Amino acid sequence: MAAETVQEAWADLPPTAQKLLTAALAAFGEQGYHGTTTRQVALRAGMSPAALYMHFPSKEALLYEIARTGHEVNYERVRRVCEERVGPVERVRAVVEAMVSFHAEHHTLARIVQYEHTSLTSDHQRELIGVRRRTEAFLREAIDEGVETGVFDAADASMATTAIMSLAIDVARWYPSQRSRRPARITSAYTDLALRMLASRA
Amino acid sequence: MAAETVQEAWADLPPTAQKLLTAALAAFGEQGYHGTTTRQVALRAGMSPAALYMHFPSKEALLYEIARTGHEVNYERVRRVCEERVGPVERVRAVVEAMVSFHAEHHTLARIVQYEHTSLTSDHQRELIGVRRRTEAFLREAIDEGVETGVFDAADASMATTAIMSLAIDVARWYPSQRSRRPARITSAYTDLALRMLASRA
Repeated sequence: MAAETVQEAWADLPPTAQKLLTAALAAFGEQGYHGTTTRQVALRAGMSPAALYMHFPSKEALLYEIARTGHEVNYERVRRVCEERVGPVERVRAVVEAMVSFHAEHHTLARIVQYEHTSLTSDHQRELIGVRRRTEAFLREAIDEGVETGVFDAADASMATTAIMSLAIDVARWYPSQRSRRPARITSAYTDLALRMLASRA
Repeated sequence: MAAETVQEAWADLPPTAQKLLTAALAAFGEQGYHGTTTRQVALRAGMSPAALYMHFPSKEALLYEIARTGHEVNYERVRRVCEERVGPVERVRAVVEAMVSFHAEHHTLARIVQYEHTSLTSDHQRELIGVRRRTEAFLREAIDEGVETGVFDAADASMATTAIMSLAIDVARWYPSQRSRRPARITSAYTDLALRMLASRA
């Protein structure tokens, strides 16, 4: 059973590793990746710097584990809903719902990952760009199928894909200061707006 | 004459202050705000830390000057095009064009400002949120006018405003890795998508 949240994905790790990742996520969120030392992460988790290095050989390894889990949990949520739904309209709806809810729930993680991406090694960057492309591909395939079958009318399918991904990704930026907007309202408005962008005739 | 770019806005400052702001922008972009010291900014600008403090009393003062100028230049661009265009369709188009081009041109600044907003003093945060609201108000007014006159059909005008702002703001995230997309293509696609979101009948 694939994890629904990042915390669930970490549940099988040793408790000390979970504590370190939780501490790193909070510290990076508050002070930025470059502004945080591994010593600070260790102390925040109530451990010695030496104990940290038993689990994570470097600060980058912490960022990578956070970013990798975030990418994979988001990918899995999108994949699962796309499998459950039939037809391009329902699949576009599903991707928007999955992406919006992920970026509202995991806004701290998502912002760190978006901003600190270039602090990862180039191998790690490439790997995660791959996961991102596979996630985006679910949306692009739904759009292309809709265009082929005449359900959608997209003037520029590539830009429309980016735009719909942007709507969902940018939720991580504004959601923390707009919590009076319930996730259900955001999801309902954004699925409607995404289908309007595609001139859905459904 | 209001400045068209952040660099133009800084052109009246003493050359040493301009150098320090340019150095701070580059350093914050590479190492994050928390990962950068005022000493590093001074050295990058070819000055002593003491010379920096003659112009900026703190690291926050550098971030504030960068963020304030960014907000004001973007606001001025939006205000100007809105004054030139007539009617809600043309004004929505104008806001999207101005916002997209600002966020493509000033992507490093925009990302720093988006991410490091909470590092500003609360007075500075409040001031800049005010500029942001006034910028967004041009879009909201155009949407409301379009809905009242029956040119637009927005199910949730507040969410549609956020969504259109998001499209433009998120350009700063993806544009650096998608430079093969010319700004003219992005602007043309995004004005079309914004008007589709509003079910424009123009």
